[in-house]
Amino acid sequence: MTLESGRKRGGGGSARRAARSAVSFDTAPVIDRAIPNYEILNEEALQIIERNAETILAETGVNFLENPEALELWRAAGAQIEDDRVRIPRGLARELCKTAPSSFIQHARNPERNVEIGGKKLVLAPVYGPPFVRDLEGGRRYATMADFENFVRLGYMSKFLHHSGGTVCEPTDVPVNKRHLDMLLAHMTLSDKPFMGSVTEPSRAQDSVEMCEILFGKDFVRDNTVMTSLININSPLSFDSIMMGSLEVYARANQACIISPFVVGGAMAPVSVAGTLAQVLAEVMAGVAYSQLIRKGAPVIFGTFVTSIDMNSGAPTFGTPEASQILYGAGQLARRLNLPFRSGGGLCGSKLPDAQAGYETANTLNAALLGGVNFMLHACGWLEGGLVASLEKFVLDADQLGALHKLAEGVAIDENAQAMDAIVEVGPGGHFLGCAHTQANYQSAFWRSNVLDYKPFETWEDEGARDSQSLAATKVKQLLSDYRAPALDPLIERALRSYVAEKKASVPDSFL
Amino acid sequence: MTLESGRKRGGGGSARRAARSAVSFDTAPVIDRAIPNYEILNEEALQIIERNAETILAETGVNFLENPEALELWRAAGAQIEDDRVRIPRGLARELCKTAPSSFIQHARNPERNVEIGGKKLVLAPVYGPPFVRDLEGGRRYATMADFENFVRLGYMSKFLHHSGGTVCEPTDVPVNKRHLDMLLAHMTLSDKPFMGSVTEPSRAQDSVEMCEILFGKDFVRDNTVMTSLININSPLSFDSIMMGSLEVYARANQACIISPFVVGGAMAPVSVAGTLAQVLAEVMAGVAYSQLIRKGAPVIFGTFVTSIDMNSGAPTFGTPEASQILYGAGQLARRLNLPFRSGGGLCGSKLPDAQAGYETANTLNAALLGGVNFMLHACGWLEGGLVASLEKFVLDADQLGALHKLAEGVAIDENAQAMDAIVEVGPGGHFLGCAHTQANYQSAFWRSNVLDYKPFETWEDEGARDSQSLAATKVKQLLSDYRAPALDPLIERALRSYVAEKKASVPDSFL
Repeated sequence: MTLESGRKRGGGGSARRAARSAVSFDTAPVIDRAIPNYEILNEEALQIIERNAETILAETGVNFLENPEALELWRAAGAQIEDDRVRIPRGLARELCKTAPSSFIQHARNPERNVEIGGKKLVLAPVYGPPFVRDLEGGRRYATMADFENFVRLGYMSKFLHHSGGTVCEPTDVPVNKRHLDMLLAHMTLSDKPFMGSVTEPSRAQDSVEMCEILFGKDFVRDNTVMTSLININSPLSFDSIMMGSLEVYARANQACIISPFVVGGAMAPVSVAGTLAQVLAEVMAGVAYSQLIRKGAPVIFGTFVTSIDMNSGAPTFGTPEASQILYGAGQLARRLNLPFRSGGGLCGSKLPDAQAGYETANTLNAALLGGVNFMLHACGWLEGGLVASLEKFVLDADQLGALHKLAEGVAIDENAQAMDAIVEVGPGGHFLGCAHTQANYQSAFWRSNVLDYKPFETWEDEGARDSQSLAATKVKQLLSDYRAPALDPLIERALRSYVAEKKASVPDSFL
Repeated sequence: MTLESGRKRGGGGSARRAARSAVSFDTAPVIDRAIPNYEILNEEALQIIERNAETILAETGVNFLENPEALELWRAAGAQIEDDRVRIPRGLARELCKTAPSSFIQHARNPERNVEIGGKKLVLAPVYGPPFVRDLEGGRRYATMADFENFVRLGYMSKFLHHSGGTVCEPTDVPVNKRHLDMLLAHMTLSDKPFMGSVTEPSRAQDSVEMCEILFGKDFVRDNTVMTSLININSPLSFDSIMMGSLEVYARANQACIISPFVVGGAMAPVSVAGTLAQVLAEVMAGVAYSQLIRKGAPVIFGTFVTSIDMNSGAPTFGTPEASQILYGAGQLARRLNLPFRSGGGLCGSKLPDAQAGYETANTLNAALLGGVNFMLHACGWLEGGLVASLEKFVLDADQLGALHKLAEGVAIDENAQAMDAIVEVGPGGHFLGCAHTQANYQSAFWRSNVLDYKPFETWEDEGARDSQSLAATKVKQLLSDYRAPALDPLIERALRSYVAEKKASVPDSFL
């Protein structure tokens, strides 16, 4: 086996020639908002929350567990260390955050799929983490690697999805200590969109970097960000050594991480929005600051995953007004830190892709667009509080993402958009369907769904009176049947497969 | 028959005593936004659109059809008249609009249900106009008066609905020329929330006023607004004599009207957002100005009902990004005219209360909340592009309206909301469920749905794996079974029934 062949970007000319001859699926450019962000907090509220976050860091502090190296770095930076507790003097964390870039490019093996994360941009990535899958025919069941591959295929073919994601579902039929290899291989071979690395062990983060070195070339990976990975904080205020170990691997390799408190409000944070925001800000500042202690300039994203809890059943709830308020507020705090912001997604608690799923998902998607999110994980396919990846919901959500693109374009105000000629031409009591302006503009004028039903009632009834889930199931089948893999240099692919095979053979299976 | 007994507010003391002894259903206060409006257009775009609206009024003009009195009023006010065409010199319409109030109170027979329309307030009213109804058991069918009464009952029992609405569905089993009487009687007797008057003939608007004089007392109606009625403009730029005749009746009686362009974009307005906004502004300014020519100070609402069209099927589409952009922009234009604003609702094109309905409805509800809507018609129950009133969707939407209330409260920032004691108490790695702050605040901390599913998967499956529509169907039955009519002075009720009976007997039935 030789890896040398892969040590140029995307395999160079041969890969590009192969790509031109393959079936190609259109991907929309990353959303570049021409609309303002929604700002729910006023200056006074922001200052109070920022002051409280500093108080939390200075007086309560955060735990860096089983991580003497981290404690030493913090001590050297000026923090007070007591056992695992790190107390960070006022202003220090914010000062350390300043070396993190406000925006960065994550490269894809197809340069046309590169994404910029930060500023007014919004990158959309699919659901992450569900152990179960659901579809109309098969119902709910444990996810397998075959399911995983189908989700990657759907993601590749979804025009409004910019990113292939990470653990789009947990392939439970592959050993825990080896599934990251198969997952990365699927993202690398079945899609040419950017993807995420493994975070379940530092060694798996290292494997992710090494596989990227095969795919992109070692030099390229040294100089460029080719992965964005999800580092969850154990809220409240706790940084475990597995997640931090993965962060350390990625930051040292100049690869991007989302530093993301994972909060079920009322359990991992106070039951109030302002209290939760202060805690989230403290946690993110500590995490980002730590990434910069590892490597100044390492790309990071201010993450916020907050949901509320149903105090009757104890279940996490999604698409709630409190979650929107926290998202809007956290976006403001992230912008004041000059960091890219991750939140939102197509979140819902519903067991099925039904009306509940629609309401809750749309509530979250809209808040994320207006709240200034730069990286939206779980943008499609999320069901049942994240326990389930749904094939039909993946397609339904991915379709709605098109509406976000259109809304973000803002309102054109040029002469054509003003349409004064049309109004003069048509006049009172007329109609616009046939006028020159309509003829010239109708094709791009209105966003339209590619899944939902717009048919006349009689036609719809004759065709079986199908609901959204049923329409989406047909679309899933059609997409998976139309799927063609993007071209990849065969030498690179062989090298990747060899790497995975060798790694798998080197240790016994573990399902723990 | 005597009407004298009704000529005091709500029947006075006897009605109030009766009310105290009846079952009472809680209604949330009108939403009073503590959050900012979302402003999608910048100052330059607003000025261009406002200038274009003035150009449309001055150069193209509007038609006031079969309405010599209107033409005479416009001529006297300084407009140029040519046949039915009214050309309004720049600035005149805007000047005339200035006498319209920026906010007004619509009174209900139960003073606790009075609503303020304008400013930062948001009043929620149910679906208006569908000729069909749908429910899970009965499917889709023509609406009847029995259906109408059930919707009024559901509206009365919906905590987050402030207004009983108007034609919640078309009772097609009652003659066209008499159904307004039955509809008003239902609103007046089955609910104590505010309602809308008839607009399908000026004489029916007059009947509406007379029935209100019985319900509220003649003096009270003379001095107060007790109805808000829907006056649609025949876009583009056309004001028919039926709608204007109804407007004239209401404005003379100091009753409120929504002046509302009804636009399917691409058919009744240009296919562009900026063009549509200019036309809508021109239409509303002409209509509001005309209301002020009828009676200075008559309460009116800047209405905007705009949807886009699917250029493939010709079907109107809802919850689209263009509709949101128009809503946001129209809200800004309305505020610059210092007028209350009507738009939004639980709009969707779906045939069923499924995921499509959920997405499209939530898209519209969120835009309406953030876009500064003051009066939201169609807030619940709307299905299939407004052709169908759905019992299950009524209950599902009305539940979601609770989330709007909570979001609009904004983020509390007092000491309790900051929750710093809780964060100190719990510390890194702890949990908040049992802490003092959670115990003191959990009951009001998080909005929760009263219809949607939050159960553990196993419980949900054991209970039949029900989707949102099925859960809502149970809720509909429960609400209709729990329903008790609000108390009404028996003398007033008898007078209302006598009025309706006499009016019905005075003319032959017509179904045209």
